[in-house]
Parts: sequence; C-alpha cells; structure tokens
Amino acid sequence: MSEMGSVKSIPSPAISADERSHEVDHPSSLVAHFGAEQPLRLDCGVDLTPFQIAYQTYGELNADRSNAVLICHALTGDQHVANVHPVTGKPGWWETLVGPGRPIDPKHYFIICSNVIGGCMGSTGPASINPATGKVWGLDFPVITIPDMVRAQAMLIDRLGIDTLFAVVGGSMGGMQVLQWTAAYPERVYSALAIACATRHSAQNIAFHELGRQAVMADPDWHGGGYADRGIHPHRGLAVARMAAHITYLSDAALHRKFGRRMQDRELPTFSFDADFQVESYLRYQGSSFVERFDANSYLYLTRAMDYFDIAADHGGVLAKAFADIKTRFCVVSFTSDWLFPTSESRALVHALNASSARVSFAEIETDRGHDAFLLDVPEFFDISRAFLQSAGKARGLSLEDR
Amino acid sequence: MSEMGSVKSIPSPAISADERSHEVDHPSSLVAHFGAEQPLRLDCGVDLTPFQIAYQTYGELNADRSNAVLICHALTGDQHVANVHPVTGKPGWWETLVGPGRPIDPKHYFIICSNVIGGCMGSTGPASINPATGKVWGLDFPVITIPDMVRAQAMLIDRLGIDTLFAVVGGSMGGMQVLQWTAAYPERVYSALAIACATRHSAQNIAFHELGRQAVMADPDWHGGGYADRGIHPHRGLAVARMAAHITYLSDAALHRKFGRRMQDRELPTFSFDADFQVESYLRYQGSSFVERFDANSYLYLTRAMDYFDIAADHGGVLAKAFADIKTRFCVVSFTSDWLFPTSESRALVHALNASSARVSFAEIETDRGHDAFLLDVPEFFDISRAFLQSAGKARGLSLEDR
Repeated sequence: MSEMGSVKSIPSPAISADERSHEVDHPSSLVAHFGAEQPLRLDCGVDLTPFQIAYQTYGELNADRSNAVLICHALTGDQHVANVHPVTGKPGWWETLVGPGRPIDPKHYFIICSNVIGGCMGSTGPASINPATGKVWGLDFPVITIPDMVRAQAMLIDRLGIDTLFAVVGGSMGGMQVLQWTAAYPERVYSALAIACATRHSAQNIAFHELGRQAVMADPDWHGGGYADRGIHPHRGLAVARMAAHITYLSDAALHRKFGRRMQDRELPTFSFDADFQVESYLRYQGSSFVERFDANSYLYLTRAMDYFDIAADHGGVLAKAFADIKTRFCVVSFTSDWLFPTSESRALVHALNASSARVSFAEIETDRGHDAFLLDVPEFFDISRAFLQSAGKARGLSLEDR
Repeated sequence: MSEMGSVKSIPSPAISADERSHEVDHPSSLVAHFGAEQPLRLDCGVDLTPFQIAYQTYGELNADRSNAVLICHALTGDQHVANVHPVTGKPGWWETLVGPGRPIDPKHYFIICSNVIGGCMGSTGPASINPATGKVWGLDFPVITIPDMVRAQAMLIDRLGIDTLFAVVGGSMGGMQVLQWTAAYPERVYSALAIACATRHSAQNIAFHELGRQAVMADPDWHGGGYADRGIHPHRGLAVARMAAHITYLSDAALHRKFGRRMQDRELPTFSFDADFQVESYLRYQGSSFVERFDANSYLYLTRAMDYFDIAADHGGVLAKAFADIKTRFCVVSFTSDWLFPTSESRALVHALNASSARVSFAEIETDRGHDAFLLDVPEFFDISRAFLQSAGKARGLSLEDR
C-alpha cells in the first residue's frame, strides 16, 4: 500500500485553544476541526459546535482541482477505504474498487473518504465529549440525518478548497449520501455512482434496524446510552444487532452456497445449543468481532439516520423534483439477489431521474451474493464503474492516461 | 364456541402416585400422562420419563374411529387451535381453518391438537419439573427434535385408541410434523395437508433462529437457562428474538402495505429513538406481548428442533426414499410471498413425492402476506383445504353431510 500513502496535509484554520480542548485527533487519520464560527446546522434544529471530521485521502489534487472523488461509507464503514484499518489490521473496506489499478485509482484521482458525522472513528458522534458537560455525549448527542452527514462533508470539501467533486461514490448508506449530494448540491457533483441503495428506507428496512436498536437497548450494559461513563460497553446487545444486520446483507442462495446445513467440525449434531452448524459459528463471529471496533450508540444514530432518509418526502412527495434540471451524470447499480435494497428501489430512482431528464445509466448485476456484493470482487460491477468514470472523466477533461 | 366444547374425556391408564407427583395438569386442557412403563425415546438417546402431553379435542370420534384429524402447531402455537386462549383471552390460533362451518369442522371430524413435547403450555418441556432434582429442568432438559414431537403425538394417538388418522394438518413447524408423520408412520396417516413448510431448515432459516437464541442467551436474566429458580424471566432477550422472527413472517410488500413509512400519531419525526414509525411500534408490541405467554427456554428448544429437521438426511440424503411406496394422499400448499419457506421448498417436496409415486396435489397461492398467510383469512387456501379433505373423506367413506 506504500504507493497509496501520499496523504495530502491540509492546514486547518486557526481555532481557539478552548475549542481544541474538546477535540481528539484520530491517530491515523487527518482531522478537520470546525469551531464556533462554523457550526453544523442539523435537521433536528440543533447547531452542533464544535465538531470534527476525520478523513483519509489518496492521490493528489490536480491543478484544476477537478479530479476529486468523494467516497461515502456505509453503516459500519469508515474513512479507511483503501488502507490497512488501524483497529482491525484488515485491508481497507473497498480495496476491491479503490486503489492502484482499480477503477478508482489514486494515480488519477484525489480520493477523499471521511467518517460520517455521528460515526465513531474520529468524527464527532455520540462517543465524543460533549463540551457542555465534559462527558461523553451518549444519548444527549442530537439525532442526525443523511442530509446532516452530507452537509458536514460539504464543509470538509470547502475546507479542502474543492468546489466541484468529479465524482461522489457510495453503496448502501453511502449510496444514500451520494443521492443526497446530488439533491442538495447538484452543481457540486459532476458524476454520481450510487450502488445498492434507495431514495428512502422501506418498512422492512426500518423493521430490521429497529430490531437491532432494541437488541442494543435491551442490554443492561447500555444504561440508557450512558455506558461510557461506567467504562463498559453493551457488547452482547450490539453483537445481536450485528448478527441480525448481517443476515440481511447476504442472500438465501449465498448462505446456502457458503454454509448450507454443513456442520462445524463434526458430522453428527451435538443435541445442544453449541454452534453445530457452520452458519451459526459464522454469525457468532460476525457479532463478536464487530463489537471490538464499533460504538453501540453510533450504531443507534446511524441506523436512525437511514430510517429517516426519504428524498421524495423532502420534495413534496415527488422524487423527480429532487433532481429537477440536474446536470450530474448518474450511474445506478443494483444486484439481483440484494433483498435489502432490491432492484425495484433502483428502478424507482432511475425513473425519477429520467423524468428529470437527467443523464443516467443503470445496471442490474446478476449475482447470488446479496447486498454484500457491492463490497466483494464482482468483475462486472468493476467494469461498469471503470467505464462510467472514464467516460465522465473524458467529458470533464481529466487526464486519465498513465502518468 | 359452545358447540365446540364437546371435549371427549379419555380415561388415562393408571399410573403410580410417585409419577403423578411430578406432573401438573394444565388447567384448561386435557392431559395424557405417560409413566415409567412408557418412556419417550428421544433422538438424542435419552429416555424421557415421566412425561405428559396437554391437548384439546373438538367434535366426536366416530364408531369406526376413522374421522380423527390431528392439527400440528407451529413454533409459538399451542393446543388451543379453536378455543379462546386461557392466557391471552384471544380466539384460537387457527379458527380461520378449524371450527363450525370451517374446512375442518368439528361436526364432521374428531379434531385433536396437542402441545408439542418441549413446549410450554402443559406438555413436558424445559419449564417442567425435573423429577430427578425437583427443580425446573431448564437447560438440563434433553434437546428434542421434530421426530421426537411426532413420536410423542403417536403415543397420544395410541392412548386415544386411534389407529389411523384421517388427516394430519399443519403449517410451518406444524407442516414439518405433518411430513415427519408421513415419513415415520405412513400407514397411520390417510391424508396429509402440509402448508408453508419444508423438508429441512435452510441456512437462512437457521441463521434467523440462531439470532433469536443469541438474543435470549445475551439477556443476563437468562442465567444460563436457570432463570426459573430465581423467579425471573429473560423478557428483553425473548422480545428481541420474537421481533426478529416476526419480520420473517411478513413479506416486504405486506409491511409496506400495512405500515409503509407512516408515522405513529405524528406527522414529523421526533428526532429521537421513540417509535416514530408505525412499523416500530408494531414490532415492539409483538415482542412485549409474546413474552407474557411463552417460556424462553422453550423457544430455544423448539427453534433448535426446527434447525435439526432434515428428512432427506435421515434417508441417506435421498428425499424420495422417505416416502417410498406411501399410500397417504398429500396436499402441499405454499404462498408466493413466503420467503421463510419459499415455494421452491414445497416444489422440492412435491418432486420427491412424485418420484415416490405418491398421490399429491400442490397449490401455490398468490398473496402478498408472507409466511403469516397460513394463519390469515385467505379464501383460496380454505377452498383448497376443504376440497382436499372432502375428496379424501369420500374416499375414506366418511359421512361429511350435515348431521
């Protein structure tokens, strides 16, 4: 990954020592601090201040400042899109798409990925210190929305001196942010790659999120969100929430192919509640490994943001109005076996974009890997992404030849 | 329901006072006690003794003893199929199908429904007293299987003096029991109505059950299954498990139609973790009402029994072998929007029955109501059930005219 380590250092504007005292630098990320003069106006009516955004960059901004690509992460992702994760030691979560030789190559693009507001990897969220009390925010942190996340990202992009993003790219909750970017700042987004997402959260989506939240809140160690002051964490509840979510990320067919009814290290059932089946063992691992890297309250806030997301509702119930006269070039991608964000949701988006006379291409990719497909090695998806960005880059006048 | 109250009283064989002391009569059900001379041989190798089966009957057994219909209940059902439930005060769980004027009418049939072994409504299960310790079994109760449930039902049917059942009927876990009846006792089942079920539990099914079990086990009030001795119950964990299961019982379309993104008693979001959306409020209610009537350990045992179910595995991996030369008349029913037990599972069963030259009819019913459809008012399903039973009754020589 050494060739990707060319992180640009951007000087932060001066902020007071008082503000500084409430901010924590993320050890392995860049951090943009926003002081009292730049509050984040949230949809709930609160001005969040001070706040900070932790982010990573790869590649270099060109002289025209026209080659910036913003990657938006999904629910449990973070800014470490294409570098070894500082907590887990695992590769970046989207190294299949982002990196040398990949469709989004730091050789061509200045790639930015920031931890969302409300997150827990360095951006201000419920695990941060509330400057009013000197204690962890917990449930006193204001509820945030997808538009709030995007508003914070726009402030970061301003800070980086970038007017127009060449591309905004994301899947799942990241795709929601892509769509919100185009609805809120159409003139700042040259091209948009929205993957495995929707313009609103469905009743079933909300149901699964509520299940996860109830699992967290049922854990006595959650303490009404005030676990941090007690030096504990609702590991058990969060693990159950993660297990529930993980089932929705995979298709029935993928689970059948990966695990079927195969037993774990044995041929006969134990007639017990041990993890006899491989799929049980897999789920337990997903749950227990997740809690080591994620804050339970952040999980509540981010799932809530997704539930509230409904672009049409913000435009009088007419989705096409959100994209009226938009110049952005869109590429919408869905996966056949994704039952969390099914193709029908992408089609509804494409119809609205067509009704707005937007420039849009749409691909439904055949795979049995479910929602997770957007993070996996799916060559057709990469080919489409590469072609879309190359075509847009040509129109934008970017030099995408080897240099 | 007065015309359905003609419960037949069947004298139990004498058992010793010592055995009696470990048995509890269910206040509003008949109970069959099985003493030391009649242990239940379980698949795990344990002989369960003594044990008891709580059951309800409706209608009267005819002189030929040829009109008995056994109803098998699903995961969270019980013997109160067609009478007001003694705990909840709600109508019987299958009064849409069973009752006066319904396809399974006590005027024509002697209807039996028993609580499964491992259950918590009067049959012996983990909430019963372990005679060896005088305390509640808890997790010392042996793990049971679908074949164990059916073996216990066969002993009940013997006790009732019935050789051949005119029909065995059930949906979901009840349908698994129907199939197990035909595989284990083909000569004792004249006709079989298997609804919304499968011959094995899929990886996704197991995953959802494991999620539910982990939710229960994550509740500190579960105490390794030993909550009863402490006078508590893992309400929170069991409610989360129920919420997860409930999502799987409904289709995405049904959730959308019932709730969509509609708010609960408000027009604008509260920007909080209250149940803003109707679907959240609905799920919370499903969770909290369930824990009032169901034992958490029973939930673990019955989900485990379903996970272990795999008829083909018990017959060298060849499903058709389970039904070789079977004379039973089958009717298999699935619902288009049931993603828990999809039509593909029913088709696999029908193919195996065809390969065994069995007499089988199959109906896939168009509905958006998901797995739950089998419990709801779906006229096409009732018409098919009625026609199948009438045709089989005619062949069996039953008098199904009004009398």
